[in-house]
Amino acid sequence: MTTEHQVLRKLRGMMQAQGCDALVAFSPDNVTYTAGFLVPSHATNRFRRTITILAGDSFAAQIVVTVEEKLARERSRFTDIRPYGQFDQDPADLLAAALTEAGVADGRIGIELDYMPAKDYLRLATLLPRARFEECRDLYFKARMIKTDEEVATLRRVGELTDRVIGEVLAETRPGMSELDLGRMTVDRMVAGGSAELKYQIGSGPRSGITNCGTSGRKIEPGDVIRIEILGNIDNYRSNVTRTAVVGPPTEEQKRIWRTMIAARDRCKEMLRPGTRVAELYQSYVDSCRAGGIEPTLQFLGHGIGQTIHEEPYLTTSRDIVFEPNITFTMEPLYMMPGRMGFHVEDMYVITPGGFSPITGDITPNDTLIEIG
Amino acid sequence: MTTEHQVLRKLRGMMQAQGCDALVAFSPDNVTYTAGFLVPSHATNRFRRTITILAGDSFAAQIVVTVEEKLARERSRFTDIRPYGQFDQDPADLLAAALTEAGVADGRIGIELDYMPAKDYLRLATLLPRARFEECRDLYFKARMIKTDEEVATLRRVGELTDRVIGEVLAETRPGMSELDLGRMTVDRMVAGGSAELKYQIGSGPRSGITNCGTSGRKIEPGDVIRIEILGNIDNYRSNVTRTAVVGPPTEEQKRIWRTMIAARDRCKEMLRPGTRVAELYQSYVDSCRAGGIEPTLQFLGHGIGQTIHEEPYLTTSRDIVFEPNITFTMEPLYMMPGRMGFHVEDMYVITPGGFSPITGDITPNDTLIEIG
Repeated sequence: MTTEHQVLRKLRGMMQAQGCDALVAFSPDNVTYTAGFLVPSHATNRFRRTITILAGDSFAAQIVVTVEEKLARERSRFTDIRPYGQFDQDPADLLAAALTEAGVADGRIGIELDYMPAKDYLRLATLLPRARFEECRDLYFKARMIKTDEEVATLRRVGELTDRVIGEVLAETRPGMSELDLGRMTVDRMVAGGSAELKYQIGSGPRSGITNCGTSGRKIEPGDVIRIEILGNIDNYRSNVTRTAVVGPPTEEQKRIWRTMIAARDRCKEMLRPGTRVAELYQSYVDSCRAGGIEPTLQFLGHGIGQTIHEEPYLTTSRDIVFEPNITFTMEPLYMMPGRMGFHVEDMYVITPGGFSPITGDITPNDTLIEIG
Repeated sequence: MTTEHQVLRKLRGMMQAQGCDALVAFSPDNVTYTAGFLVPSHATNRFRRTITILAGDSFAAQIVVTVEEKLARERSRFTDIRPYGQFDQDPADLLAAALTEAGVADGRIGIELDYMPAKDYLRLATLLPRARFEECRDLYFKARMIKTDEEVATLRRVGELTDRVIGEVLAETRPGMSELDLGRMTVDRMVAGGSAELKYQIGSGPRSGITNCGTSGRKIEPGDVIRIEILGNIDNYRSNVTRTAVVGPPTEEQKRIWRTMIAARDRCKEMLRPGTRVAELYQSYVDSCRAGGIEPTLQFLGHGIGQTIHEEPYLTTSRDIVFEPNITFTMEPLYMMPGRMGFHVEDMYVITPGGFSPITGDITPNDTLIEIG
């Protein structure tokens, strides 16, 4: 008998500790974490389900659409691959059959109620009337929040690429270029560096003051604030890095806002170690900003990062999470002045036994307001 | 009183014709179709809901996460924007309140049961115990299947870009380049041409025989079959174009397979006109392939295309759909020989009153097996 992959062992142990008889994932991020690879069309075609099932001490199966069966057999951690026809079968029927086969049809099923479609839930509840379904969201959050060393190493690879590219693009930025010109440079360098896919957004002038501004054809002018955010992907692990620049010397107002944001973040950096509550970190950030005369735009200071861009721990008051080694996250001070301009600086960090280690920021400085031209 | 946008009028009319008192969308594609713009984080952050609500003769509201409120107020077709806090509010509560305010709390609610999370359904059913919820999947499929002229024009823009780029990339392909080198050329040209984001996959040699093969660092060798598929995006409308090439002269076997696929597709082209049943089209394709000695790999000949890559009509036997003018779709003959090689050619078409018009294929030929070198 082969030994189960450490991720499956960890999930099975957490499932049992929670008193569940089965653990079922539907979302691309939790399925990818569990199976160890992304079924290509899972994230792009919402009509194709991919489902992982762990049950009891040894049951493990993955349901995929027939067209993905071959790849799943090659790449999944699961050996029991169960294909269903997209047009003539209901994946909820296969799921009910698997849970019955595993002997847990009347058991406690941890399942992604916050993601699985209502339709699948209603079908499953009809087929397994004695099963009890409960949310497994927190179980997956906790499992994924603390990375393996291998995961941290992959995050460093994609983080370092992004850290380098964001500086290179800003170094080549000149008035007269459009936001899309910068986007093209970004894509070209990120893809050349091995990012399988990426997102970015670039706001200049008043557009820098829109939180999620996308990227437009607007041409960059002297005096503009430019905000560039890059989200890369290597081996399904993500980066998220943001820098703000000014074309020409910054105004006194811009300098004051920037100093306040950076001082607030740097006070938070001093708190990055095992044992710190993320809620305290956010409160410290808010207090520092207010003392400097600015009100934070976002209701969080940053977010966990791994196979998804936003995951636990969110650095905010509503989270009762204490830092542990190998938690990876971003801090992203952000201050928007709608209609005028916006400031934003985002980097990735990992908690270590003795404190923290920055994942990004060593290549493109993150404490100065970058000047262009 | 302002006149309601034609898309909202159409949806409201279909909702009423179906006997529903409200129509509620949750999925990024249906919400984007309804509201006329994509909430940026809707497709990338599964914890942020965006919901559109039409009810009765005039109620119209959109629920968004607070961080997207400003952009929604600027760009949505809805003027009644209702923000919720991601960390301290439940969007299902806002939805229940809106339906109550609209006077349909005990009515028939058309809602996306195949997409809305089970959690939101359970909450809503608790808050509105007298409401009847029913699937609105087909209503949206039908509404979106028949494009406006404006939508067809946008599909032509993204289709023509993709048609041009795929030919340019293959024209520059040489043995020794890697699949990722071709990917980089693809991204660079697509972004330069205005594709806001894109996907692609490139399989060479035996990898061309994997349906969803992704793109690897494998270097291209003489004798390889190369399969390249590009999916572009301009203004949230998608393209999907695929070509197959051979490095050096094709073998007799390759020529025979290719001729069979193209003949099967061309017989289908003669059937493209209003009144043709998509099931007949698929059957014709299967019959032609089998007569030529190959068994189609996919259970469909193609799929609708619009704001999503895969939408109705799927060209397959299970669909009871008859062509009408302004239906847009792809045909994609595909034949995989696992472990050896694969063939695939995909183009976009639109049904016209008198027959059809190709959207792609005028720039990069789609009837010859492209030879490289």
